[in-house]
Amino acid sequence: MLIVMHHSATNEQLKAVTDAVEAMGLVAEPIPGSLRTAIGVLGNQGYVDDTSIRELPGVREVIHVSKPYKLVSRDFHPASSIVDAAGVKFGDGQPPVLIAGPCTVESEEQMLAAARLVKNSGAQMLRGGAFKPRTGPHTFQGLGVEGLKFLRQAGDAEGLPVITEVMRIEQLETICRYADVLQVGARNMQNFDLLKEVGKCGHPVLLKRGMSATLEEFLSAAEYIIAEGNPRVILCERGIRTFEQATRNTLDLSIVPLVREMSHLPIVVDPSHATGRRNLVGPMAKAAIVVGAHGVMIEVHPDPDRALCDGAQSLTPEGFGKLALELKCLRSFLETL
Amino acid sequence: MLIVMHHSATNEQLKAVTDAVEAMGLVAEPIPGSLRTAIGVLGNQGYVDDTSIRELPGVREVIHVSKPYKLVSRDFHPASSIVDAAGVKFGDGQPPVLIAGPCTVESEEQMLAAARLVKNSGAQMLRGGAFKPRTGPHTFQGLGVEGLKFLRQAGDAEGLPVITEVMRIEQLETICRYADVLQVGARNMQNFDLLKEVGKCGHPVLLKRGMSATLEEFLSAAEYIIAEGNPRVILCERGIRTFEQATRNTLDLSIVPLVREMSHLPIVVDPSHATGRRNLVGPMAKAAIVVGAHGVMIEVHPDPDRALCDGAQSLTPEGFGKLALELKCLRSFLETL
Amino acid sequence: MLIVMHHSATNEQLKAVTDAVEAMGLVAEPIPGSLRTAIGVLGNQGYVDDTSIRELPGVREVIHVSKPYKLVSRDFHPASSIVDAAGVKFGDGQPPVLIAGPCTVESEEQMLAAARLVKNSGAQMLRGGAFKPRTGPHTFQGLGVEGLKFLRQAGDAEGLPVITEVMRIEQLETICRYADVLQVGARNMQNFDLLKEVGKCGHPVLLKRGMSATLEEFLSAAEYIIAEGNPRVILCERGIRTFEQATRNTLDLSIVPLVREMSHLPIVVDPSHATGRRNLVGPMAKAAIVVGAHGVMIEVHPDPDRALCDGAQSLTPEGFGKLALELKCLRSFLETL
Amino acid sequence: MLIVMHHSATNEQLKAVTDAVEAMGLVAEPIPGSLRTAIGVLGNQGYVDDTSIRELPGVREVIHVSKPYKLVSRDFHPASSIVDAAGVKFGDGQPPVLIAGPCTVESEEQMLAAARLVKNSGAQMLRGGAFKPRTGPHTFQGLGVEGLKFLRQAGDAEGLPVITEVMRIEQLETICRYADVLQVGARNMQNFDLLKEVGKCGHPVLLKRGMSATLEEFLSAAEYIIAEGNPRVILCERGIRTFEQATRNTLDLSIVPLVREMSHLPIVVDPSHATGRRNLVGPMAKAAIVVGAHGVMIEVHPDPDRALCDGAQSLTPEGFGKLALELKCLRSFLETL
Repeated sequence: MLIVMHHSATNEQLKAVTDAVEAMGLVAEPIPGSLRTAIGVLGNQGYVDDTSIRELPGVREVIHVSKPYKLVSRDFHPASSIVDAAGVKFGDGQPPVLIAGPCTVESEEQMLAAARLVKNSGAQMLRGGAFKPRTGPHTFQGLGVEGLKFLRQAGDAEGLPVITEVMRIEQLETICRYADVLQVGARNMQNFDLLKEVGKCGHPVLLKRGMSATLEEFLSAAEYIIAEGNPRVILCERGIRTFEQATRNTLDLSIVPLVREMSHLPIVVDPSHATGRRNLVGPMAKAAIVVGAHGVMIEVHPDPDRALCDGAQSLTPEGFGKLALELKCLRSFLETL
Repeated sequence: MLIVMHHSATNEQLKAVTDAVEAMGLVAEPIPGSLRTAIGVLGNQGYVDDTSIRELPGVREVIHVSKPYKLVSRDFHPASSIVDAAGVKFGDGQPPVLIAGPCTVESEEQMLAAARLVKNSGAQMLRGGAFKPRTGPHTFQGLGVEGLKFLRQAGDAEGLPVITEVMRIEQLETICRYADVLQVGARNMQNFDLLKEVGKCGHPVLLKRGMSATLEEFLSAAEYIIAEGNPRVILCERGIRTFEQATRNTLDLSIVPLVREMSHLPIVVDPSHATGRRNLVGPMAKAAIVVGAHGVMIEVHPDPDRALCDGAQSLTPEGFGKLALELKCLRSFLETL
Repeated sequence: MLIVMHHSATNEQLKAVTDAVEAMGLVAEPIPGSLRTAIGVLGNQGYVDDTSIRELPGVREVIHVSKPYKLVSRDFHPASSIVDAAGVKFGDGQPPVLIAGPCTVESEEQMLAAARLVKNSGAQMLRGGAFKPRTGPHTFQGLGVEGLKFLRQAGDAEGLPVITEVMRIEQLETICRYADVLQVGARNMQNFDLLKEVGKCGHPVLLKRGMSATLEEFLSAAEYIIAEGNPRVILCERGIRTFEQATRNTLDLSIVPLVREMSHLPIVVDPSHATGRRNLVGPMAKAAIVVGAHGVMIEVHPDPDRALCDGAQSLTPEGFGKLALELKCLRSFLETL
Repeated sequence: MLIVMHHSATNEQLKAVTDAVEAMGLVAEPIPGSLRTAIGVLGNQGYVDDTSIRELPGVREVIHVSKPYKLVSRDFHPASSIVDAAGVKFGDGQPPVLIAGPCTVESEEQMLAAARLVKNSGAQMLRGGAFKPRTGPHTFQGLGVEGLKFLRQAGDAEGLPVITEVMRIEQLETICRYADVLQVGARNMQNFDLLKEVGKCGHPVLLKRGMSATLEEFLSAAEYIIAEGNPRVILCERGIRTFEQATRNTLDLSIVPLVREMSHLPIVVDPSHATGRRNLVGPMAKAAIVVGAHGVMIEVHPDPDRALCDGAQSLTPEGFGKLALELKCLRSFLETL
């Protein structure tokens, strides 16, 4: 931590800050500059809470050098983590994983049809929402436990592990019974109680980036899960909220190579929710693989025009089959680079 | 709803869209233009789900005219609502309410001292967090139920109703026992399960705008609560996330007069969390009153330099006393305008 | 400047960075920490260009302590500046200035009518655009030099100094002949060549914040003007672009008290362009005065429903008269606080 | 255009709106709904200025169906445009173009070295800035005309067409003498006077998207150039400003396939300025090609650690050589899909 003093700070103010640092059991090392003095803080083992320092008289700015996500950071965990989710591996050196399925579980028939086409395309994991977060209360909210059963059944029928979203703590036990991977949605990325409970269970977790979460907040959310003892976290970029509204959100692909630099955790990309437009899903999925994502998650529906939710961004079976093939070719090509 | 066709859309495509609209039990009225045709959709009683329309061939754009927050809108509820929270009234024609207290409940002594200074300043409601959402897992997370007791005890000692944040459904019953008003935090504004449960209980609710929530999403979140039968919702603007990081968030005061136009619900402003800087709290609190907020929520701590949380934005007792007085004068002045 | 090394940086890397700093004529002071080493850079007289440092092997981050706006900063210019614009004074201790007029100069009659109502309301300065920046090329672009003449004539008729926007360098000489204050618009805030030329002329300048400019960039833009020898800069907050589109832009009022802390320059607020909605102009104008703005700039049109540009945000003569009176009362009230 | 009335609008208000529409020479067609009435506006040949309508009593909202960029839109120009820039072709069916070179022209030797390595990599166009927009006034501002000469000379030496940025109208004639393609930078995307002048000259123009420009504003800026008679516009996505500051800007790749749908103009991507980090340039350049960009513009410097500007984002000669090869392979691969 670096404490920057006002250029007009007095010696008494400097001393008060130094004392406050030492009261925290840390070492204060003044760095006199030509215009102002800064104080380096040494001895901390990680992120320091600056509450008692920031507003002391004479302090202009407090700059943090340590980051609040030590367990997630590559700094002290240089080797990349491989997350094994029911036999499907996410991480460096593994082929990128294709997760696919409808936004929402609607019926037994729909899920069986979806699982079949997902399997046939060569994808490795089946998705489907049983509990749905919806912006307004007057729209379809998901089938609940019945949906979980249809999802599991469809996954079993085709030998695909399944992933579904958990929205509240009380659902956790039930969902763990039916699903192989838990998804924490963008709206819950800072639902810290949920993160902690998810961190206490043994299931792998796909954590979506919040719509307005910085990279630092995203990694800190993952830290919550790992801090509770669950290291099997897969990060998921799904678009951030910006002024641009021609697409639903702005898919921030540049975060993918950056996360790979900063963290040992795998990261996947969800181009369907990010763009909200069917025509953009394919190009952005391919781009995700090219920038180094460890997987992509795609919405596909046996009959998208009759989908109860997000039909506009769901691929048709034909479109999905074509994309899955292109992604496979792309993977092979990238291995030759 | 208005469906805009591509200028090159064929008659067959037009017919398919018309059929789809009619299959929804609605009326389709083509509006032929010089460049392209649009189709007006009539007969709906509110927001229409456009899933089955948006991606039909020939459709360029779907424009919604009805909004997804009918219960919150002033359109069909022209009279302003007054929300009574344990005798404190929020709404048009009431003096703006001053809610104050520390960010976090830390101890019995701290809360008693806080309540005393809040009461002495003339404020009408005491705040204090017992369960805290924190960005990283390695920081203080609140005292929990013990904190609730200290908050209640301090409120009772000074005759102040109390408000505290609810973060998860299981806490709801306990919190309702101790608090007069429930706060739903910015991070939970789209935790729809929580909104629904809060909508089922009888307590008034202060709903904070999510950091990246549009006005439409904010009003739709309130719709969730009202739709479950709880009309006592107080909206709270607390800053949005923007590119500007000189302040913690950007306090969007212009939303206050706009919400008053669009909705019958009261709206208050939290300048402490929005700015994150002690020096800005006073000016922005006064501005909030001037633009028509029905109250402000201010952080004050008996000893901010020793606060366990957000000390940098908490006012000192002296600063708070001065601000409370200025707000009182400002209120009187505004009545003369 | 502080250079933070990777925790795994080698001694050779540390040495290379130290050498690079010294090659710039500066002093490098290593600050060994428990987890990593940082290097304090001393001896600089201001902002240091970090190009040759940032990508050296072993460097994790470069943190700037000095800011790139020394002339604008209050650090070395603690006394507030008063900018005198044709006798109208902007700055601390002066009553807030009311600048008003139509968005665009449309005709001689319109400007004379506008000037009369501006004068009658007690406002101190007349605005009017002769050269207009318009998003699309197929809309009215302003009257040009003829518009300048109408503006000047109307100002003279009522004894009001006039302000108008300069969009390109070649217009500068002409505009200086007719106008008392130059306005640099939001879209030109980083048109550095224009800033420099404006810095070379003797007229006071009202510099609008760019729609996506951080506070630091805003102050740096003012630095351009002052660095050329023109210290008479008035800053103007006019809303930033955010995800929220219920208002045209998001008026960032919290920047006003912050600029007053950080800079000695006066700052005014333009609520008309920021909100784009007539009903919001009054509340936000009053709020601007309350947070400490040294003036507000308001659009008013003798007949807003027939305005050629931005009629929707222009006040009517009646609305403006009422607002001007309220602002006057508010000013008097604030002096009593 | 669709005018949505308040549900409580009176028949008189409806009539006043209808009259106003007809006064503009257009046809008003009321569409009575169950909750409110809307008025379709017919007969317009493009975007309609809604100034005289928007604030009429009883009007809730005005929705534009026609867009303000008719010349740029694919609607009336379905065939993709190929822009030929000194023999280098941008557009559908052409191999993506690689433009490369240093951020800034620094010396004759530097440019000759840069041109050589650009040429050897197989790139088709040389870039280099002679006039530089810089955030603060105290940094290097470019070599000016001398820089143009070095750029031209280096291009000629290797047989590469050259592109450079024009920042002000007076530079235009000179720059046209030396450069093959004009670049309009992000900060000038809404410098409408510059756009018009650029539209009057015969050179092809690479127009960068403004940092906070929506897609609609970006296309409208291009409309300015084409409206003046210059159809040779190449769009360039270079990142938008968002809350995320781990990268300099957020590269919005999803706009590439969207622009290709909406416009007939070619679009290229600049990953160097968008990310500001050398390590991210390669992945994002490849992703740009995959999503369908007609070219990429990359910064490379013979000796980036000694670059006078933006060294941190410039590739080394080795890194660039490797990337150019990968892009070539990627192109060939994509043709097989």
